[in-house]
Amino acid sequence: MRAAIMRDQRIVTDELPDPIPKEGQVLVKTLACGVCGSDLHYLQNAHRMGELGAAMGRLPDADPNADLVMGHEFCAEIVEFGPCTERKLNVGDRVCSMPMLVHPGGIAPVGYSAQFPGGYGELMLLSEPMLLRVSDDLPTEAATLTEPMAVGLHAVRKGNLQSTDAPLVLGCGPVGLAVIAALRLQGVEPIVASDFSATRRELARTMGADVVVNPAEEPAMERLVKEAGLKAAVVFECVGVPGMLQDVILHAPHSTRVIVVGVCMEEDRIQPLLAISKELAFQFVLGYTPEEFAETLRALTEGSLDGKPMISGRIGVDGVAGAFEALGQPDAHAKVLVEPWRNGLL
Amino acid sequence: MRAAIMRDQRIVTDELPDPIPKEGQVLVKTLACGVCGSDLHYLQNAHRMGELGAAMGRLPDADPNADLVMGHEFCAEIVEFGPCTERKLNVGDRVCSMPMLVHPGGIAPVGYSAQFPGGYGELMLLSEPMLLRVSDDLPTEAATLTEPMAVGLHAVRKGNLQSTDAPLVLGCGPVGLAVIAALRLQGVEPIVASDFSATRRELARTMGADVVVNPAEEPAMERLVKEAGLKAAVVFECVGVPGMLQDVILHAPHSTRVIVVGVCMEEDRIQPLLAISKELAFQFVLGYTPEEFAETLRALTEGSLDGKPMISGRIGVDGVAGAFEALGQPDAHAKVLVEPWRNGLL
Repeated sequence: MRAAIMRDQRIVTDELPDPIPKEGQVLVKTLACGVCGSDLHYLQNAHRMGELGAAMGRLPDADPNADLVMGHEFCAEIVEFGPCTERKLNVGDRVCSMPMLVHPGGIAPVGYSAQFPGGYGELMLLSEPMLLRVSDDLPTEAATLTEPMAVGLHAVRKGNLQSTDAPLVLGCGPVGLAVIAALRLQGVEPIVASDFSATRRELARTMGADVVVNPAEEPAMERLVKEAGLKAAVVFECVGVPGMLQDVILHAPHSTRVIVVGVCMEEDRIQPLLAISKELAFQFVLGYTPEEFAETLRALTEGSLDGKPMISGRIGVDGVAGAFEALGQPDAHAKVLVEPWRNGLL
Repeated sequence: MRAAIMRDQRIVTDELPDPIPKEGQVLVKTLACGVCGSDLHYLQNAHRMGELGAAMGRLPDADPNADLVMGHEFCAEIVEFGPCTERKLNVGDRVCSMPMLVHPGGIAPVGYSAQFPGGYGELMLLSEPMLLRVSDDLPTEAATLTEPMAVGLHAVRKGNLQSTDAPLVLGCGPVGLAVIAALRLQGVEPIVASDFSATRRELARTMGADVVVNPAEEPAMERLVKEAGLKAAVVFECVGVPGMLQDVILHAPHSTRVIVVGVCMEEDRIQPLLAISKELAFQFVLGYTPEEFAETLRALTEGSLDGKPMISGRIGVDGVAGAFEALGQPDAHAKVLVEPWRNGLL
């Protein structure tokens, strides 16, 4: 099969052997797969991820020098069932799955595993019990948004927002946009969203933000305080670069709850005394539960969540390297979909 | 009056004019006042506190070069009522008060205000509405513990512990000991407590810890996990030095809630990615509410809280400078009381 492969810290297009489904596994054809910001980070930090895993007493999934096919936001079509499968779905059915594959050696993260290729290749293996059928009413491109939008839903759930809370979303990349959509779904308001990019601010409005702020012109936290009235501040940090937490600590009002969704891969510096003096709370979040993943797919199907405005481009496997470069520019794109069975650059 | 004064970043004993009560104020005689670790920090960092205040858009209470009488853990006796006071209590009554004085210019922190002396001097001014009468059944020395033990009660309340939670207290100085007592009061168990000092571990047991750990011999977090069984980990960070938060991030199990009670006055470094991957939560806490302060005094009076084992020494104003030095050694002392009307060194 053809795939966009991470090799020697670069993305290259090459042929790989077709995967063969083993016990409990299903071979699927990748119909479309979103490019995630984490993949850009991972390309730069693969060695460091191993270090961090080791620091936590976990071995990294694989040799960081091995070929790896990323891509974990996919919608796929069932091609073939492996042995010992229940086959309640049919060949040809479209499916989503949490990007985790259960195998005798453990649980592999599909898209970050050298053993199991992710959605930037034509074919993947998935675990049969993880498959969720995609309704005929839901376009493939919308189904690929299940994963990134589940991240937003999870973050909002962990934030445990009440009607007395006023949220501020810092950063309107795909993560921030997913948070905005989940906040809208929950009916919390007003939703204030902040981004330096005019394109992203416009997208934030489309996804459900009531107020958008350009932090170059107006401090986001000041605007939140103004809009919140007597409601409590809840900040969703969706940027994930060093300095963001300290910036929140400096400017957040007393008792602010901060939900840290943006993944900062570098060391960061904070002044605990300021956080103490304001009694701030930080909830770091990651991923979603299986229930939240399924709920997101259902909400997308029913139309209560709509992520399609986020999709800004479609490419083939040969376009992945270029997309990684383009996504470094915050104004250029939000969510780019890889459709591995065709050619196409951004 | 005589007082131990912070002057030129040192503690000196000197005479100061007796304070005169104005509208709503009460002149009190300090019977005893605990030495707080924050005072040691403050002596080293007074200039820095001003910087931090300015960073948050607040002006420091006063010129850091002015004379300042610290001491905010006091029990005092009413000497004289100022004008416009209700006088529901009587001259000679013993009282506690949150260390805050309401005056026309705002709210002054008693013990950290150059304008209003704290409990390391013979006399103080307090706000009449803040006074709580100390019952005849409660010894003065126990009443001085209202303030530090309210800090523990507040931290435990903010931790919102359930019977399914298992707490670990890192650091068994007075803050950690107050947390242990408050956990015991709430009936949470098992309480695991960790400190390098054998003296402090022994005190931790006396105050209510079920299990004490010497982190030089056994990682505290591993012991917590062992003792907790299926309960959720809640860590009370009561050390407050750089590196503690990162240490917790590295070793805490998934979903741990961390209550940050120790006041780290320096910049600190963390790896957010690790906190994210474990979905850790941090609640920074400070002080207590007026209700919690009154509740602590009530619990001390009724005997459901007992802090007296913490008291390890008594000094006069002339002993404060030496006590500050001695308290730098974790093994030497827990809570030292200043009794300003007498002489006495540690």
